Amino acid sequence: MNNNELPIALSNRHIHLKKEHIDVLFGLDHELTKMKDLSQPGQYAAMEKVDLEGKKGVIKGVRVLGPARNKTQVEISKTDSFALGIEAPVRDSGDLDGSAGLKIIGPKGEVVLEDGVIIAARHIHMHTEDAKRFGVIDKQVVSVKTKGKRAITFKNVLVRVNANYALEMHVDIDEGNAALVKNYDLVELVK
Amino acid sequence: MNNNELPIALSNRHIHLKKEHIDVLFGLDHELTKMKDLSQPGQYAAMEKVDLEGKKGVIKGVRVLGPARNKTQVEISKTDSFALGIEAPVRDSGDLDGSAGLKIIGPKGEVVLEDGVIIAARHIHMHTEDAKRFGVIDKQVVSVKTKGKRAITFKNVLVRVNANYALEMHVDIDEGNAALVKNYDLVELVK
Repeated sequence: MNNNELPIALSNRHIHLKKEHIDVLFGLDHELTKMKDLSQPGQYAAMEKVDLEGKKGVIKGVRVLGPARNKTQVEISKTDSFALGIEAPVRDSGDLDGSAGLKIIGPKGEVVLEDGVIIAARHIHMHTEDAKRFGVIDKQVVSVKTKGKRAITFKNVLVRVNANYALEMHVDIDEGNAALVKNYDLVELVK
Repeated sequence: MNNNELPIALSNRHIHLKKEHIDVLFGLDHELTKMKDLSQPGQYAAMEKVDLEGKKGVIKGVRVLGPARNKTQVEISKTDSFALGIEAPVRDSGDLDGSAGLKIIGPKGEVVLEDGVIIAARHIHMHTEDAKRFGVIDKQVVSVKTKGKRAITFKNVLVRVNANYALEMHVDIDEGNAALVKNYDLVELVK
């Protein structure tokens, strides 16, 4: 791995749930069951899945990520937003005011979400030590170059630095497929 | 439109059929029915649709484009290739040797296609006069910049120059969604 390189990962559609919504969807005081750890420390893919219903369509079997959060957040792609028939904005994680809504369907109940549905803006997680190596700071905006036949340069990539983060760029499935990259492919950070 | 700008268009999955396959899928000597003209002179979207079946899944209602060609060519996105369970390569139009296969299902019959399924490589159609304006030649490879929140630069963009072409960049749905562009948005050609 060269000094300006980092691995990329494609985020498929998923949902982060707050406790109250886990209760409604899966039953009172239900605890999420870890299926596997994700690359970001403490985060995991749960065994639980839900269906998402928009005005135009339903997407079944959407993975729940744990642990529970303070606010429910659904992350989909632009392709998914067309299939559901909703107008989800491209947003940074947690920036949910005025974002899209939909119905979440679980085995024990349903939640009508007024907002919380976004297309996650591409971003880079990096540990404090990585930030020193790249010479960047938290919330800096950089570009990232991919290689190969469908080589592209992603502009407006937000860098998030935290002592709990592992070095990784996150793009959604549309972005990953457009660049024809796979998980753990190396990409180049450009300031 | 600035001197280095051109409109972009998103190509959804579609199929070009040779006459023998139109006969099998829609009946002997069936003539495609024009639904609407496309931006490239002489090309049209037909009323006819087919289903595509791969190892893993089926995509229903895929639009046939006319007129008939010498060889059947199916153009899908990487996202579609996962849904179908086939390994379609990124190729220029017409470069079909060793590309992917699938089953085409029409109202009157089915065709098992050995090859002909590609993910179309992004490209620019331009008239001879446009080529002079941009200072490029047929088969030149350029880059293209998009604007906005998801601004990206597409590298390896093939320029096709012909007196019958209308100025337009073609990307697939994955690429269009990754850049968050819509049909007729203006993008910038970079040599």
